[in-house]
Amino acid sequence: MTLAFVNSPIDRRSDLRPQGTTIAAMKSDPASRLVRIWGDAVEMRNAHLHLDHDGISDRAVFLGKTNNKIAWFADASDSEPDCVSIRTIMVDGLLPDGEISLLAQARSLVSWHQRHQFCANCGAGTVSIDAGTRRKCESCGAEHFPRTDPVVIMAVRKNDMHLLGRQASWPPNMFSALAGFMEPGETIEQAVRREVLEETQITVSDVSYVASQPWPFPANLMIGMIAEATSDAIKIDPDELETAKWFSRDELVHMLEGTHHDGLWASRPQAIAHTVLTAALKR
Amino acid sequence: MTLAFVNSPIDRRSDLRPQGTTIAAMKSDPASRLVRIWGDAVEMRNAHLHLDHDGISDRAVFLGKTNNKIAWFADASDSEPDCVSIRTIMVDGLLPDGEISLLAQARSLVSWHQRHQFCANCGAGTVSIDAGTRRKCESCGAEHFPRTDPVVIMAVRKNDMHLLGRQASWPPNMFSALAGFMEPGETIEQAVRREVLEETQITVSDVSYVASQPWPFPANLMIGMIAEATSDAIKIDPDELETAKWFSRDELVHMLEGTHHDGLWASRPQAIAHTVLTAALKR
Repeated sequence: MTLAFVNSPIDRRSDLRPQGTTIAAMKSDPASRLVRIWGDAVEMRNAHLHLDHDGISDRAVFLGKTNNKIAWFADASDSEPDCVSIRTIMVDGLLPDGEISLLAQARSLVSWHQRHQFCANCGAGTVSIDAGTRRKCESCGAEHFPRTDPVVIMAVRKNDMHLLGRQASWPPNMFSALAGFMEPGETIEQAVRREVLEETQITVSDVSYVASQPWPFPANLMIGMIAEATSDAIKIDPDELETAKWFSRDELVHMLEGTHHDGLWASRPQAIAHTVLTAALKR
Repeated sequence: MTLAFVNSPIDRRSDLRPQGTTIAAMKSDPASRLVRIWGDAVEMRNAHLHLDHDGISDRAVFLGKTNNKIAWFADASDSEPDCVSIRTIMVDGLLPDGEISLLAQARSLVSWHQRHQFCANCGAGTVSIDAGTRRKCESCGAEHFPRTDPVVIMAVRKNDMHLLGRQASWPPNMFSALAGFMEPGETIEQAVRREVLEETQITVSDVSYVASQPWPFPANLMIGMIAEATSDAIKIDPDELETAKWFSRDELVHMLEGTHHDGLWASRPQAIAHTVLTAALKR
C-alpha cells in the first residue's frame, strides 16, 4: 500500500473539451469508459470500475484519455446499492492504483456539479459547458470553475519528539498529523503556523515542503509539510482535537509500522499524513 | 522591493469569530481599523489605509487583530474615486509591507462575499455568519466557505537554459514563469507537468517546491516550483501564450536585474515568478 490518488493514468486533454462533436462521438463510442459516483462511493461490478454502457449521458463529465485512445467520463449514479465507498476501495486496495487515482478527479467533479447547479453571483440556474469542466450562468453570464480547497497537513517535531493529534471521531488508538484548511490571503507556511498554534498553542519556526495529494472528500488538495516547533507546552482546542501529544522517535516508528506496545497507530500509508510523518523521521 | 502579500501582521483570532457580542463591540470601537475595497482597489487617504470611521457596518468582515489589541475589518467601498489599485500600491510600494500584505486577506474576502450572495446548491439567498468568515443558505442550510484557488507557477530549466513565456496582454518585453490553475484530483507535481506540456509541449521530470504567495486577484494561492525539463522543442498553445523561449542563464540574470541588452525583463520582485526564477539560478 502506498499513497493513494497520486498516480492517475488520465491525460486530461483539455484541448478536446470545447470540441462538442468530438466529445459527443466519444460518448457514443462503446469503448469509452464511464465511472458513476454516488456521494463518497462509486459503482463497481466484478472488481471493475468501468462499466458497460449504451452511450454516455449529456451530463457526464469528460475526464480525459488513457493510452491516447480510451476516453473516460464520470457521471452521478442513480443506484446506491451497486456502490462501494471510495475510502474502502482505497484502504482495502480493491482496485489497481491507477483506477483509484482517477477516482479523485471523477468524485471531485461529479460532486462539484451536484452542489453548483445555481449561480452564486445571481441565484439563477447554471449549465455545464466544456464537457463538464466548467459551468455558466444562463442569466448573468458568470462562469464557474470547479473548486479545489487547499489543506495544510504537517509533521511537527522538536528534538526528536513528534507532535501528533487525535480527533474524537477517529477509530480507537489512531493519531495523525495536524491539518487544516487554508484561509484567504495567507501563504502555505503561514497556514501551517496558524493551524498548529490554533489547535495546540505550539509555536513553529521553519516550515518545509514534503509532497501533495488530492483528497476527494469532496475536493481537497493536501499540502504535506514538516514544521519545526519552538515550544513544548500543549494546550489543545477541544473543538478541533480530543488530544495531542509528543511522541518519541521510537514510538512514532512503531505507530507507523503498527507495532506500538499500546496499540497506537499513526494513519495509513494511503494518506499523506503517513508520508509527512515518515519524512520527518528521515530529514 | 520584495515578495508582496507574505508578511501580514494580522493574527486572525478565529476564536473570536463566533462571539457576536465581542465582534459588535470591536466594530463600534473607534480604535478599530477599516479597510474598504472597490474591485481590485482600496480606499487610501494621505498614504494611509486605515480610515477614520463612526462605527463599522454589520456587513464588514473581521480580519483579526494586530499587536493583540487593534481589530481590523474589511468592507466594500461605495466610493471608487478615493480608491487606488492594489497592484499600483504593490508595485510602487505606496504602503508598508505589512499593510500591503493584509490587503490580500481583505480583498479576497470582500470579493468572495460580493460574488457569493446566493447558494450554489439551491439558488436561495445566503447570509454572512461568523463575522464574515463564512456564509449560510437561509433555505437549504448549506454552509459556504471562502474560496482559494491554487495555481502552480514554475521555473522550467534544462542544462543552464531557462524556459520563459509571454502572454500577449503583458507589458512590452516582459517574460515570466509559466503558470496555471490546478484542476480537481491532481497533485501539485502533476499540475506542473500538465501545464508545461499544455502550454509549450515541453516534458518535465523532477519537480521541487520553492515558496508560496497569496495573490488576491481575486483569491489565488500561488505555489512556486522548479521543474526539470526533459525535452527542447517548444510548441506553444496560442490560446495561452504569445511566445515561449529558452534563455541562457546569463540572459535570465540580466532580465531579472532589468539590464538585458534588448530591454527584456522577467517579472517584478513583488511577484513569486521572480522568486522561483531566481531560485532556479541558485539551486
